[in-house]
Amino acid sequence: MADGVGSRISRRSLLAAAGVAVGGSVAAGAGPRIARAAGQTFDAEADVIVVGGGGAAFAAAAGAAKPGIRVLLLEKAPAVGGTTARSGGTLWIPNNHLLRGKGRTDPKPDAVKLMARLAFPTVYDPEAKNLGLDAPHYALLDAFYDLGSQVVQRLEQIGAVQWELAPLRPGQTSAVPWTHPEYHAELPENKSPYGRSIDPKGKAAGGSGLMAGLASYARRAGVKIMTGQRVVSIATNAKGEVIGVQAETEGGLRLYRARRGVVFGSGGFTQDRSKITNYLRAPIFGGCAVPTNTGDLIDMASQIGARMGNLRNGFFVQHVLEQALGNSSVVDDLWIPPGDSMVMVNKYGRRVASEKTPYNEHTQSHFVWDATKAEYPNLVQFMIYDSGVAKDPAQAYGAPYPPPGKNAPFVIEGQTIGELTRNISQRLDKLRGKVSINASINDSVRLSDDFATQLKATIERFNGFARSGHDADFARGSTPIEVSWGGPRRKGNTKNSTMYPFSSHGPYYCILIGGGTLDTNGGPVINTSGQVMHIDGSPIPGLYAAGNCSASIAGQAYWSAGGTLGPGVTFGFTAGENALSEPDKDI
Amino acid sequence: MADGVGSRISRRSLLAAAGVAVGGSVAAGAGPRIARAAGQTFDAEADVIVVGGGGAAFAAAAGAAKPGIRVLLLEKAPAVGGTTARSGGTLWIPNNHLLRGKGRTDPKPDAVKLMARLAFPTVYDPEAKNLGLDAPHYALLDAFYDLGSQVVQRLEQIGAVQWELAPLRPGQTSAVPWTHPEYHAELPENKSPYGRSIDPKGKAAGGSGLMAGLASYARRAGVKIMTGQRVVSIATNAKGEVIGVQAETEGGLRLYRARRGVVFGSGGFTQDRSKITNYLRAPIFGGCAVPTNTGDLIDMASQIGARMGNLRNGFFVQHVLEQALGNSSVVDDLWIPPGDSMVMVNKYGRRVASEKTPYNEHTQSHFVWDATKAEYPNLVQFMIYDSGVAKDPAQAYGAPYPPPGKNAPFVIEGQTIGELTRNISQRLDKLRGKVSINASINDSVRLSDDFATQLKATIERFNGFARSGHDADFARGSTPIEVSWGGPRRKGNTKNSTMYPFSSHGPYYCILIGGGTLDTNGGPVINTSGQVMHIDGSPIPGLYAAGNCSASIAGQAYWSAGGTLGPGVTFGFTAGENALSEPDKDI
Repeated sequence: MADGVGSRISRRSLLAAAGVAVGGSVAAGAGPRIARAAGQTFDAEADVIVVGGGGAAFAAAAGAAKPGIRVLLLEKAPAVGGTTARSGGTLWIPNNHLLRGKGRTDPKPDAVKLMARLAFPTVYDPEAKNLGLDAPHYALLDAFYDLGSQVVQRLEQIGAVQWELAPLRPGQTSAVPWTHPEYHAELPENKSPYGRSIDPKGKAAGGSGLMAGLASYARRAGVKIMTGQRVVSIATNAKGEVIGVQAETEGGLRLYRARRGVVFGSGGFTQDRSKITNYLRAPIFGGCAVPTNTGDLIDMASQIGARMGNLRNGFFVQHVLEQALGNSSVVDDLWIPPGDSMVMVNKYGRRVASEKTPYNEHTQSHFVWDATKAEYPNLVQFMIYDSGVAKDPAQAYGAPYPPPGKNAPFVIEGQTIGELTRNISQRLDKLRGKVSINASINDSVRLSDDFATQLKATIERFNGFARSGHDADFARGSTPIEVSWGGPRRKGNTKNSTMYPFSSHGPYYCILIGGGTLDTNGGPVINTSGQVMHIDGSPIPGLYAAGNCSASIAGQAYWSAGGTLGPGVTFGFTAGENALSEPDKDI
Repeated sequence: MADGVGSRISRRSLLAAAGVAVGGSVAAGAGPRIARAAGQTFDAEADVIVVGGGGAAFAAAAGAAKPGIRVLLLEKAPAVGGTTARSGGTLWIPNNHLLRGKGRTDPKPDAVKLMARLAFPTVYDPEAKNLGLDAPHYALLDAFYDLGSQVVQRLEQIGAVQWELAPLRPGQTSAVPWTHPEYHAELPENKSPYGRSIDPKGKAAGGSGLMAGLASYARRAGVKIMTGQRVVSIATNAKGEVIGVQAETEGGLRLYRARRGVVFGSGGFTQDRSKITNYLRAPIFGGCAVPTNTGDLIDMASQIGARMGNLRNGFFVQHVLEQALGNSSVVDDLWIPPGDSMVMVNKYGRRVASEKTPYNEHTQSHFVWDATKAEYPNLVQFMIYDSGVAKDPAQAYGAPYPPPGKNAPFVIEGQTIGELTRNISQRLDKLRGKVSINASINDSVRLSDDFATQLKATIERFNGFARSGHDADFARGSTPIEVSWGGPRRKGNTKNSTMYPFSSHGPYYCILIGGGTLDTNGGPVINTSGQVMHIDGSPIPGLYAAGNCSASIAGQAYWSAGGTLGPGVTFGFTAGENALSEPDKDI
């Protein structure tokens, strides 16, 4: 367990402190339990402490930074940026000013209904109180609608980030020229299917650009940024109010005082195998989350009675399996892969979903448990494509395919489907026994004896779909996003642009695909102010959280591009502002 | 939240106590924080306190009960019995004495491999250290193999329960005359597929018989049993050792001291919608768990830093949907339903699994998320059968079918498939908006427009399978358990006894089926002594847990009949014994 050391220290401290206290040797008004136990004084002091170094954390720092206010940001890694810096940098913000600037509207009742329907699909009921949701869940969606557009405009006003509508990328199509359709544009509940996704503008593009903007603003605003700070416990005073944090550093344990509040924006638990096995509803091979995302806040907040929520969910994405097996913190992922003469099949050679389904939904096809065979038949999927896809650069944008004419070590090749099948089997045997996070290439990950036969039948059936333009099995290319991101139309294809018949002769190619996360999104439950909730239903004074370290307001959904950072930045900024407005706390 | 009041009291108490302590006004060696805060003295004192009233709890009481030792058992409900009293009373115990008495063997390495393969299928590796499992998981399986057979013999020796091998029931078949095959008898890893499931013997049959035996023994052994005791917090001393519990009662809050230890056997969280939504990997309509199973231990143990495990899992079972919608604590469930001319289909009229797959596996077919449609297409399933099944009593054992000639309000009838379809739609409309736990009959639970057509095609295809004896889609009847429990062979059926062609004329019938649990099985992580583990990796002194309130040793598995109670009783008894042997603790 990556988090063992810190927690151990924390607990010893707590016990020792408690012992001293009850022993009666404590002077009145003495410091926090953790500080006293370690015999320490505060190593530094701030008004607001922010823990983490990604989008939610820096948004919190921006929310808290005011003239004369000391904000201290503590990042575990050697550098700031977190998982956000690896991301596309997109924020999903309902009713944002750029959408409105295009003359579009995004009425609140409809937007909240869409969010609710996707976040909690089995209880959503448009006629019921709170749309069928638990009241706190509904309140968070309601608040997000109002806060999101305000926060992104504030970030512009203070000069931290300038935004633009997420532009179309080469090869993408859309009903409007200025942005792509939403991932769930086709749902009847979606009344505003264009324009909720916004990007940092211009040169500062993508997640690294977003982080550069936020970090630069934080430095200008006087935020003190310290890296290599592994926060391991939360300090409370006699009233149970949060008054600081303890961190492991190269120089030893450090105790930092937060006079007003602490905001966590410290990421999910993708990189902690034990938490994934215990909480997440699916086995995964990897995640985009940086290696430091081990869910430390869950351990810390549990010890002061925080309520945990949404632990079962993550923002899911597919990875190139062999990259994940080499490093569970995977830089690349599949999004919505282009490629028309391409199918993904399971170990039985069968397709299991539309290959163009947006990533959070598509990845869940890996997690199906076969009740009859007591196995995960789709745990590893096989992305099969032909030389037409391999050779055409236009087909290769944003997918794992190597550039035309180049090799990639994870591409398996065969002149015939039979040879390809043998080569896939050999590759699996070579990988046998490898483990990443809580999934492995164990004995159950083998091609069925009839894989080649079945794959041929699958391709033949797919070719029929491609010729007719209609995928009778999974409706590939039937939604705006599948067409938009599914790859450019091949010359001569007058039907469905996402499908084209496989070449009748080889070579054929295969990339092994595994399921993973952008990151998990469960942790302490927050309220609409961003405060962490105690099990008793009241907020824990002085403690805030936002982003993937907290219970996502999105439930099981990924609303569309930016579905992670939209709420993360919104509630991060809000938490920072609210922490700033707290009263000073006794120590 | 059903648990709000208790937790609130607990927390206020803790905060107040902490305030007093840090303020310096506490005399040395003063009492527990909770007691002092409430200004209470202890209302009762015991050596060991057991919380809960089902199989795990009473096994703990039996383990702790010794002459001169005071054991106090606190049950939340007005009567003891818990979910165990509703169960079959079967325990799954590897290498038990009755199995050995039949001349069978169950070698430890093989048994542990089977458990590991089913509990953690994606990391199981027979060649790897700890079989690929995390060391604590492996240690628990290893310990269970040794402890299980010892505990059931001890329960016989002390006169609490006499056991017999789980007998064949009317209509069941088996390769041996003395018991049924295991649910996973067909797996190559299963080297002992007969005899691990044992039942309480004779008149004391079933779960109520098991509870009668255990409770009667407890009373004889001097265990003090108190009902109507809603335990709401765990009391700790200055060293962090557990020294008792606080309970809400009709007469107000009560504080009980446990000199040596506290054992929780208080059940899962099936009946707490919020916990189900936040933790369980699937939406459910109901569970066999008694209404008091709201996961209180999770709230209490979180506040003293316990590590949580297996929160995503449950022991799953199907329910008659309309019973679950009436009362989420469902007395009946589907096990492995008999009926040969019977299929279960989803809202598109398609089969999704072998209808005879054992319940824990079969129920998971309800939880598949359709990545393309963003819906749960199998959330409600439709159990379709013909008049042959309805009329033949031999077909009706252990299934939801009413006795021949009788009506049941949840049976939908139609003279033709078309009429049946219309009547199902009408029934769904009648149920529209109903919610139970975290699933509902919302707008997504509607038959597809082509349901009748598709159902006819499904039946036609099934009839072909029945005539050939081979289910090419889901291999129904291909495993020993599916044949054994799948219903008796119809006269004239020389092929697969689990399938028979549907009658070519009506009436046809439908029962709506929803997914649910026996109970959830996540909670505090325990070690091989039954101690609850702190987040720091050390046991919390004086605190034990067993059964469905704790992180199941079974991971995602239900090994076979008795897979719940086997480990629950084993670790309950073990925890009771170990709590008894703890030193007295200071208050």
